[in-house]
Amino acid sequence: MPLKTNNPNRKSWIEVSSNSDFPIQNIPFGVFLTRDDVITIGTRIGDHAIDLGALHQLGYFKDIPLTDDIFLQDTLNDFISDGKKTWRLVRNRISDIFEKDNSSLRDNEEHKKVVLFTMEEIEMQLPVQIGDYTDFYSSKEHATNVGTMFRDPDNALLPNWLHIPVGYHGRSSSIVPSGTPVRRPMGQTMPAGATEPVFGPSKLVDFELEMAFITTDANLLGEPIPVDEAEDYIFGMVLFNDWSARDIQKWEYVPLGPFLAKNFASSISPWIVTMDALQPFKVNSPEQNPEPLPYLQQTEKKTYDINLEVSITPENSTPTTVTKSNFKYMYWTMAQQLAHHTVNGCNVISGDMMGSGTISGPTPDSYGSMLELSWAGKNLINLNDGSTRKFIDDNDTVTITGYCEKDGFRIGFGEVSSKLLPVFQPKKK
Amino acid sequence: MPLKTNNPNRKSWIEVSSNSDFPIQNIPFGVFLTRDDVITIGTRIGDHAIDLGALHQLGYFKDIPLTDDIFLQDTLNDFISDGKKTWRLVRNRISDIFEKDNSSLRDNEEHKKVVLFTMEEIEMQLPVQIGDYTDFYSSKEHATNVGTMFRDPDNALLPNWLHIPVGYHGRSSSIVPSGTPVRRPMGQTMPAGATEPVFGPSKLVDFELEMAFITTDANLLGEPIPVDEAEDYIFGMVLFNDWSARDIQKWEYVPLGPFLAKNFASSISPWIVTMDALQPFKVNSPEQNPEPLPYLQQTEKKTYDINLEVSITPENSTPTTVTKSNFKYMYWTMAQQLAHHTVNGCNVISGDMMGSGTISGPTPDSYGSMLELSWAGKNLINLNDGSTRKFIDDNDTVTITGYCEKDGFRIGFGEVSSKLLPVFQPKKK
Repeated sequence: MPLKTNNPNRKSWIEVSSNSDFPIQNIPFGVFLTRDDVITIGTRIGDHAIDLGALHQLGYFKDIPLTDDIFLQDTLNDFISDGKKTWRLVRNRISDIFEKDNSSLRDNEEHKKVVLFTMEEIEMQLPVQIGDYTDFYSSKEHATNVGTMFRDPDNALLPNWLHIPVGYHGRSSSIVPSGTPVRRPMGQTMPAGATEPVFGPSKLVDFELEMAFITTDANLLGEPIPVDEAEDYIFGMVLFNDWSARDIQKWEYVPLGPFLAKNFASSISPWIVTMDALQPFKVNSPEQNPEPLPYLQQTEKKTYDINLEVSITPENSTPTTVTKSNFKYMYWTMAQQLAHHTVNGCNVISGDMMGSGTISGPTPDSYGSMLELSWAGKNLINLNDGSTRKFIDDNDTVTITGYCEKDGFRIGFGEVSSKLLPVFQPKKK
Repeated sequence: MPLKTNNPNRKSWIEVSSNSDFPIQNIPFGVFLTRDDVITIGTRIGDHAIDLGALHQLGYFKDIPLTDDIFLQDTLNDFISDGKKTWRLVRNRISDIFEKDNSSLRDNEEHKKVVLFTMEEIEMQLPVQIGDYTDFYSSKEHATNVGTMFRDPDNALLPNWLHIPVGYHGRSSSIVPSGTPVRRPMGQTMPAGATEPVFGPSKLVDFELEMAFITTDANLLGEPIPVDEAEDYIFGMVLFNDWSARDIQKWEYVPLGPFLAKNFASSISPWIVTMDALQPFKVNSPEQNPEPLPYLQQTEKKTYDINLEVSITPENSTPTTVTKSNFKYMYWTMAQQLAHHTVNGCNVISGDMMGSGTISGPTPDSYGSMLELSWAGKNLINLNDGSTRKFIDDNDTVTITGYCEKDGFRIGFGEVSSKLLPVFQPKKK
């Protein structure tokens, strides 16, 4: 049964431009600071943010089993813990409240004053307290490109890659919302031809075009999640820039994986778009050959058709789109990632975040990192202002956007946009 | 100036046996469930747990700047955030309250009734909400053993090892306190000689003898911690068993590091012993050659002399000590680990946990894992009951203990003890 919230004919009494990422069918969740310096949980329609805490206090969520303060919090973790049934009840109600013929809020100027904000009046925050963050490596094109550049073009994929959604743990504390500037990291590297490592600013700072999903409480420690149930535990998705320092990574990553090359900062878009909102955009996932082991075999082999773009904007200049990719290229699905993650009994809880890994498409203009776009610095990327890049320069702003589109309607993620600042300079004492 | 709490002549009016890990000089911090099913923060002297929440409500921490509910919480994170000066004020006060000649609490039976518990009356909990958990790989002996077994005995250490305190991110959600049973994980492995991976119970479950330190809020994102200041941001230490599934690890870990081989469970001792309590046991750290890069050079090259032991107890049997090691063997110090972790600007916060890596000593009877003790399964380890082990069997209990001793007085960590249960069996539907 199609979800009521996905009805493409539904319109809101809030004006929504035709190319908006946030029609009434989206209803994403986020956390923001209001003009009164209050933190609240909210959603967005068109260019208006909606204070769900205020709506709840005014009685608009009557008869839905919610605690009084569920939206008066600085993270979505508790709401996400409430589970899929509650998310649907809340999204249905929001869809009804803002439906164009519903006069209850539309015609109540007093209520609208405390519920509605323009985007300029608010400041988006990190939407969840991320307990654990895992990053996968699930784009076959990306893994093949990296293997070709750094290992053996004839055996670019490592032996485990086609059998395992390879993943590793990342750092939660340094995940920041869109708009937060990021600093070029200092670090240890081994320059080509050198015999001793050197210390200094990373010279090869890169973006990684990724998406990430946010989970709800999924399983007890020791109990796996079956692959066909896994998606029920995914609350929604965000855009994700997994900032990377390639020179630090190259020297440090053997044998335990990337560490300081990644944990200086990672950036996410602030609105979590629910899996329910993405249902109309399901498409077949890539064929998997060899067939995965039974615990990774899905009955419904589906993924999502999400258009992705990355632009670079130099200081005081205009953006240049440097790549266009799509989430549907991912070899391993989110359900497979989550089933694999828990098959050993690892417990997944509300607010955990799992990254897709760099999303590279099949053609060179769809690669998801400067490493691949410049082919390890061999090619120059031309920007609109006449400058060129191999990696990211100081004061460049990197912006990822993403949206689904079908039959004239569009559900989008907004953007994750962050500026790379020069290295930290300690204050002179 | 020596800390008052470290005065070895101080005695408590609570009876403490001479071989106790918890004399009045220790004053560790933990979280426990009381006989009244209330969660509180507490400390321990001898075989008594002390409810710091109750002590605070009764006014015993007067004139120390603490919020009213600082000890009435289910984690130590907020208290740890208060910083070193506050930890010292509180430990000094506790030392005074329980000093044998101080009658204020000693002679107040009403107060003692609500403050003191025997260890049998309480249930220890995880002491902190661990935001991020990082594991290092800082024992030269362990890294050399592993490199010798799996790579090249003549080049056992990888090129970066002597330059970097190599580390990687681990999973926080599956860290459990001593006493919580752990399940043998299921997983994917590539058997020797096979061409396709198989799925089943891990056959090579191992302990790793480690210690871990817990941090306070240390730095802002983007700003490194100088190595000589790093230890000020360490609240204390615990014993740590980093459970590992060697067969899963071998197949999955290239190129991004261990994942499901580690995140099925990790166990810690429940009492955090503060760095102040460990000051009398400072010793020189191993010589480092080559000299590390300047950001890793410490003025005071010190570590801690902490005796460590591991025993295995089969079901319905007696313990056999299988190894004795010491924290002082670690090549990289905690200050170096923390300085390295933040040199790229990665932010460290209250409740983060950092593991040492397996602590192996120089001789075969001091190796910190069954992998090394059995030399990858080539040697049998004899247990007291006549059975033998190469790795850990179902229903074995693995116990790590640790203590410092000097001039007849002893500060200990208690134990981390956990039983390995057989693999999870899903209920038939």
